[in-house]
Amino acid sequence: MPHVQAEALRAFSEALLTAGGFAPGDARQTAELLVWANLRGIDSHGVLRIPRYVEMIELGMMTSGGTVAQVGGRGAVAVLDGGKCPGAVGMNAAVDKAAALARDHGIGWCAARAISHAGAVGFFTARLAERGLIGLAMTASKPLMSYHGALGEALSTNPLSIAAPMGDGQDPVILDMSTAAVALGKIMAARDAGRAIPEGWAVDAEGRATTDPDRVAALLPMAGAKGSGLSMMIEILTSVLAGNAVIGPFLAAGRNNGFNGMVLAIDPAAFGDPADFAAEVRALADAIHALPPAAGVDGVLLPGERGAATARLRAETGIPLAAGTARRLVALAGKLGVAVPEALAAAE
Amino acid sequence: MPHVQAEALRAFSEALLTAGGFAPGDARQTAELLVWANLRGIDSHGVLRIPRYVEMIELGMMTSGGTVAQVGGRGAVAVLDGGKCPGAVGMNAAVDKAAALARDHGIGWCAARAISHAGAVGFFTARLAERGLIGLAMTASKPLMSYHGALGEALSTNPLSIAAPMGDGQDPVILDMSTAAVALGKIMAARDAGRAIPEGWAVDAEGRATTDPDRVAALLPMAGAKGSGLSMMIEILTSVLAGNAVIGPFLAAGRNNGFNGMVLAIDPAAFGDPADFAAEVRALADAIHALPPAAGVDGVLLPGERGAATARLRAETGIPLAAGTARRLVALAGKLGVAVPEALAAAE
Repeated sequence: MPHVQAEALRAFSEALLTAGGFAPGDARQTAELLVWANLRGIDSHGVLRIPRYVEMIELGMMTSGGTVAQVGGRGAVAVLDGGKCPGAVGMNAAVDKAAALARDHGIGWCAARAISHAGAVGFFTARLAERGLIGLAMTASKPLMSYHGALGEALSTNPLSIAAPMGDGQDPVILDMSTAAVALGKIMAARDAGRAIPEGWAVDAEGRATTDPDRVAALLPMAGAKGSGLSMMIEILTSVLAGNAVIGPFLAAGRNNGFNGMVLAIDPAAFGDPADFAAEVRALADAIHALPPAAGVDGVLLPGERGAATARLRAETGIPLAAGTARRLVALAGKLGVAVPEALAAAE
Repeated sequence: MPHVQAEALRAFSEALLTAGGFAPGDARQTAELLVWANLRGIDSHGVLRIPRYVEMIELGMMTSGGTVAQVGGRGAVAVLDGGKCPGAVGMNAAVDKAAALARDHGIGWCAARAISHAGAVGFFTARLAERGLIGLAMTASKPLMSYHGALGEALSTNPLSIAAPMGDGQDPVILDMSTAAVALGKIMAARDAGRAIPEGWAVDAEGRATTDPDRVAALLPMAGAKGSGLSMMIEILTSVLAGNAVIGPFLAAGRNNGFNGMVLAIDPAAFGDPADFAAEVRALADAIHALPPAAGVDGVLLPGERGAATARLRAETGIPLAAGTARRLVALAGKLGVAVPEALAAAE
């Protein structure tokens, strides 16, 4: 498995995206988001997405180089329309706008409608935590998992991320969870490996629990009705509220309205002394760390802590890329005339 | 099982609470909250709580008749301090304040710190939906369930509710979920009945999965790390942010700082035409209702729909009270000199 240093992978990704039709600033922001995910071990949301992103540009499903325009809002609310811009571009704009609103109003809600795939949403809440703000972000897209008690795909695996700063130079706490029982990638991996999947991950076309990855018709929501209820409310808060409903039009008429996102920024200084807030978050983190681990568990981790540790490790050792991912990126580089980093040249 | 009409139960509850030391307005608000839960079939959060609430007043764990004072906030943010007021009183004040902030700023976040037990939080988000606003509410309290990967009780089952108006005279969508795999009451019921519990609900003192309700040392979070991560973030957003941390001080020093709540109100009119919003929520609801039900499922229900149907039924037939609940309320009435409704007199 080839290992690539983060900066080399970022520069390569930016070059691939630029050659594939992304405007320079859009390519930079997207590459940064993807490599952040790889650094943290979320390889399913990393550079393996690049060939599809380039294809989406070619198909007109994503556009780059346009403007993310504010089309609505009042007070502590702003509505941006991305015009099918890359997800990173729309969500970064929402992060900046929400942060500015929070400085003025204590909190700020920025909708980013009609964007494209937004990747690992923890990236955006982490950006807010770096500025001393609490960040909450959600994204919404078309059906990928079932609704509790119904057959087939009906809702997306809509993720929710919440991050809080800890101050004192420490990593923020970053919760980043989908509303599905499991990531689709884990079922694809089991299918490739000819392995059974555990019960509770997915159902077949008749809505029966299945352990056969080849019979999967829909992912199950996490925790049954809670997961599908939360996914539906994320669709309402992220898509419907911003004037770009996705699930209703898809189920009723097969129309695909793409992706939407939202960012809520909260300024702890609007509630009290932000240093006290950060100190109490650290005290909470210390109390969690001091819990006795269950049998077979090495240590008790905070949300986002494993990702931060992986990022430190991979910053040293480089990012390990699966052979298939490396091969596909090198092939794309050949097609687009982009130079391949030395560490990946062997994958040609 | 005695059946009591909702209004008779509400009046009886108000009289019991008043005789038990609640100020008149506080008793009225608390009775309304409890009977709302009973009407919707959430009997675990209904009038069975009254004897404990009266005991909490006697013990000084709850106070009534004080003021819910604004102690902080800026722009679209307000921080209320309840001074250990009844949960309904603190949360109703937060609903009113958040709604007023949302009218002015598009969104409004109101913290309600140092309140008491807030019951079924869907009550408060439903109040916002009745006013045409989206409501989000969370409450936080002391350890009742485990942290993923750790032994013993570490986090609360902190609930999250989100409600959205559908307009057109229709019931709002109301998601109301705890962050635990199951309600504690279901384990108590299995214990009373001598039944095993399903795997995945709880762990024993060594952190092993158990199906024996007598060996339960802690509830499990819903969906593993997702449930404990979400509960921890609710503690940060609800308790730490408002300056009344609960989990950290409890785990570190056994100190019980009680309960906190928060309410976020969102005005759809700040995003676009609120009539369009409500129409799109109805279209989403229609699409969900039209999904083919899985085998063994009668029909596909929206979040909160079963509760609304139960409330309509119980408004007709009266509220069925478990024999033990009826007996305890009648005994409390005898002690406090409160007249017992005819429907409950047989339970003496």
